[in-house]
Amino acid sequence: MKQGTLDLETSHSPLETAIEGSFFRNFITTLIIVNAIILGVLTYESSLSPGFVASLSWFDQAVTIIFAGEIALKLIVYRLNFFRNGWNWFDFLVVGISLVPGGAAFSVLRALRVLRVLRLLHIVPMMRRITEALLNALPGMGAILAVLALLTYVGAVMATNMYGNTDNPEVVELFGDLPSSAYSLFQVMTMDGWRFEVVQKVVDDGHPYAPLFFLLFIFVASFAVLNLFIALIVDALAEEQRAATDELLDEIEGEMDEEFETADKEREQIITMLTELKKDIAALKAERSD
Amino acid sequence: MKQGTLDLETSHSPLETAIEGSFFRNFITTLIIVNAIILGVLTYESSLSPGFVASLSWFDQAVTIIFAGEIALKLIVYRLNFFRNGWNWFDFLVVGISLVPGGAAFSVLRALRVLRVLRLLHIVPMMRRITEALLNALPGMGAILAVLALLTYVGAVMATNMYGNTDNPEVVELFGDLPSSAYSLFQVMTMDGWRFEVVQKVVDDGHPYAPLFFLLFIFVASFAVLNLFIALIVDALAEEQRAATDELLDEIEGEMDEEFETADKEREQIITMLTELKKDIAALKAERSD
Amino acid sequence: MKQGTLDLETSHSPLETAIEGSFFRNFITTLIIVNAIILGVLTYESSLSPGFVASLSWFDQAVTIIFAGEIALKLIVYRLNFFRNGWNWFDFLVVGISLVPGGAAFSVLRALRVLRVLRLLHIVPMMRRITEALLNALPGMGAILAVLALLTYVGAVMATNMYGNTDNPEVVELFGDLPSSAYSLFQVMTMDGWRFEVVQKVVDDGHPYAPLFFLLFIFVASFAVLNLFIALIVDALAEEQRAATDELLDEIEGEMDEEFETADKEREQIITMLTELKKDIAALKAERSD
Amino acid sequence: MKQGTLDLETSHSPLETAIEGSFFRNFITTLIIVNAIILGVLTYESSLSPGFVASLSWFDQAVTIIFAGEIALKLIVYRLNFFRNGWNWFDFLVVGISLVPGGAAFSVLRALRVLRVLRLLHIVPMMRRITEALLNALPGMGAILAVLALLTYVGAVMATNMYGNTDNPEVVELFGDLPSSAYSLFQVMTMDGWRFEVVQKVVDDGHPYAPLFFLLFIFVASFAVLNLFIALIVDALAEEQRAATDELLDEIEGEMDEEFETADKEREQIITMLTELKKDIAALKAERSD
Repeated sequence: MKQGTLDLETSHSPLETAIEGSFFRNFITTLIIVNAIILGVLTYESSLSPGFVASLSWFDQAVTIIFAGEIALKLIVYRLNFFRNGWNWFDFLVVGISLVPGGAAFSVLRALRVLRVLRLLHIVPMMRRITEALLNALPGMGAILAVLALLTYVGAVMATNMYGNTDNPEVVELFGDLPSSAYSLFQVMTMDGWRFEVVQKVVDDGHPYAPLFFLLFIFVASFAVLNLFIALIVDALAEEQRAATDELLDEIEGEMDEEFETADKEREQIITMLTELKKDIAALKAERSD
Repeated sequence: MKQGTLDLETSHSPLETAIEGSFFRNFITTLIIVNAIILGVLTYESSLSPGFVASLSWFDQAVTIIFAGEIALKLIVYRLNFFRNGWNWFDFLVVGISLVPGGAAFSVLRALRVLRVLRLLHIVPMMRRITEALLNALPGMGAILAVLALLTYVGAVMATNMYGNTDNPEVVELFGDLPSSAYSLFQVMTMDGWRFEVVQKVVDDGHPYAPLFFLLFIFVASFAVLNLFIALIVDALAEEQRAATDELLDEIEGEMDEEFETADKEREQIITMLTELKKDIAALKAERSD
Repeated sequence: MKQGTLDLETSHSPLETAIEGSFFRNFITTLIIVNAIILGVLTYESSLSPGFVASLSWFDQAVTIIFAGEIALKLIVYRLNFFRNGWNWFDFLVVGISLVPGGAAFSVLRALRVLRVLRLLHIVPMMRRITEALLNALPGMGAILAVLALLTYVGAVMATNMYGNTDNPEVVELFGDLPSSAYSLFQVMTMDGWRFEVVQKVVDDGHPYAPLFFLLFIFVASFAVLNLFIALIVDALAEEQRAATDELLDEIEGEMDEEFETADKEREQIITMLTELKKDIAALKAERSD
Repeated sequence: MKQGTLDLETSHSPLETAIEGSFFRNFITTLIIVNAIILGVLTYESSLSPGFVASLSWFDQAVTIIFAGEIALKLIVYRLNFFRNGWNWFDFLVVGISLVPGGAAFSVLRALRVLRVLRLLHIVPMMRRITEALLNALPGMGAILAVLALLTYVGAVMATNMYGNTDNPEVVELFGDLPSSAYSLFQVMTMDGWRFEVVQKVVDDGHPYAPLFFLLFIFVASFAVLNLFIALIVDALAEEQRAATDELLDEIEGEMDEEFETADKEREQIITMLTELKKDIAALKAERSD
């Protein structure tokens, strides 16, 4: 875990050493996994004995308190630097949700409680590598996702204007307002039931040329998604390529450097010998002119 | 924006400088975004107060006039060179549509009005890069799209001949005429409900071997689409590859050039020294023969 | 068009020159396109005047005869070498089908007549390149398609044995015999309506664990298809790579060859000069010992 | 087949030579193919004459015994080393299943009997290459499949908590318990009927914001699957790349080595000649000083 404080403080406090140690990490990992299983078992609440449910819930609350304690410890150690790390924010939020007392919105809050299991995504090193690779791929997708969002917005405004003013409840459900239209266009983009669940209903509502609009949307959107896909592949490969090129260059340089060094030395030796020869002959000549 | 005139005229008129400046561009961008939001809000027309709708419509018309004025300015500055740029054509058309007075075809015209929001695709630099990359990928797809279109045409003629002559209204809807057949084959190609919404209806209409025709079509079309996809990836990567190769070559040449220059100089020095030696010895010999 | 005869006969007959010439090719291309349009118009037979249909049919038959004559000419020119070319076989078959007199199976034969339009795939050079690229990709897919076919066969035998012995007509339609099961498994593989159109019907027929079988099949088949896809991309790119590597090598060699040639010449010059020097000194010495 | 014993024993027993020979392999391959056809024909049991079914079943049992004998022979030859090979385990299991006497679970056991046909996957060399390539791709997918499984588990717990507590039988079928929820989320991930078969039923059960949950799940899961896909392509290409780089390096080294060797020799020759010249001149000088 990269912490700004690690660079500033040369000596780690014993508490920090403990928190960042593998024992503590393994303890938390185990706790999350056990908690995940318990939250799964608790979905069978109605068919379990009340006592068993009560003890599982008690354990779940104990885990919540331990996690809250873990965050409190980290806040004590790192103080405001704690919030410089995105994963700490993530932990803070998913544990915080569990501490909100449930009431009317009980089922949603209980559902959100399970989000804390996603802490595994950054605590288990193998998963963390994958998760960070996924997050790193996001910025490269930004521009093309913006284009897709713009196309969907424009398409949704058009579809709402063209097909939404109707009394047919099925078409109103599909294109009655802007979010419905965007949702229906997303369905068309996923090509799931696009013809008979969406387009045909619009056609039957008196728009015989609606397929032209939807086919155009399918072509443009599929083409953009395809290029999004290709951009990701090309980016990943270009990085790979660069590494391969660098390695190749190093090996060629290594190969040549050795030869070039020998050649340089030998040419210098030749020049030295010629210089000496020249001197010798000059000496000969001088001697002779005596 | 590349304008043929920019190469011909060395001095830009003040009007041109203003139009191409970042202030004007930001003003237009903001106007498009605000207009996009207003067009979205206007889809809720029936649940808004008439006064609010009227003022939004008034604003929308004002924006149309500003955009028309922008194009008029550009026409004055660039004259016929204006039409040498594809994006100018695009702006001309999407703004022109808004100026057509609506009547019977009101809802379609109002729907098309939102197309002007797509001007963002070439005005925002980040989106323009993506859009032009997408457009540049199109020519490479031309030949394979032609093959796919030919396969669909031939398949549609065959399906209409084989399955269209029936009284079953469901099959007539699917394969009753050429456009319907092409549309149904496109549905089969997207693999959406291909079996029970399309093939099974044909089978039930007395064509037990219809699955053979459709499976063959699915295989051939999927294979062509797959190769279209692969061609795009390979093209994108080949370009990347060429850049990497050129860079590698430059670095190797840089490495070698330095060495080769030294070696060339030193060999020349050796030759010069030998030539001098030769002269010295010749002098010695000449002296001696005296 | 590669013809074995071209290599054997050094002088082309005038007939061969005409057949292979661009005038003849353009004439045939135009004829196919016009014929394609006519075959499309003929699908509207019932709503056209009988006279118009008759003249279109007459034209279609005339085209058939011209194509048959073209093949006859080629048979005269190339004799049995005609059949060494796969595309000639293709032409021979699609034109031959049109010559079979239609009777009871009229609609199928008329449908197959349109296959001759696919001759464009190898006559138009742009399309021919694509078609041959597609055909060249096939052998690389052979082994993995064999694996997929084997998996589907084994899956179909299992599904027929496990689910086919039932009175439920819906399940009998899906898994009643081997071809039906293979077809249903193909539907599952395309992920079209796999859950409620296929798996759920089997579950409702008394097989609560059927989802396990189908999920396993989806995972294994998708994984194999994915790898088929990846193999095609890697093959296409490896070829590209090889070309890039060769080009790089040529450029590096070109760069080095020039330098190496200069260096070789200069070193030889140095050796020659040294040999002469040696002779001069030997002469000096010999003279002196006199 | 790699057997640990092959390395230990330098002399192969005649039995081992026979088992590993191509005659035995071809015999087994033929037997599996014939058996596969018979198992296919046996799915038509009810429409075949009882005598024919009996003889086919007899042949099937004979094949089972031959396969059991083959495994017994291999166990005799390789003893415990037999189990060091994964494919031997596979053969052992699929043949063992056929030997279990069928009773109540007859149809499932008969269905599993056909798994022995999958022995072709490792006996036919062409298929074995593909199968092992597929198996080798698995470890690289491990981490991302773990992330996907975790996301599905968390999503399933959330969906069960949020949507499962209802009396609506359709929603209970979809999200009533954990396995059902995971299965429904997998259906949503395959994008098959996700809107009207799944999400809409939940919405109609009183959860108007359910689409947000499912759209988020679709986005996150699709993105992870996409990256799984890209990782496989990049891995396959990186290997290809490495091979191409090595080959390039070899060729460049080959090219340079020849030149460098010549240059080294010639420079050494030059140095030798200079040394001799030096001696000659020294001799000249010595002679002269006499």
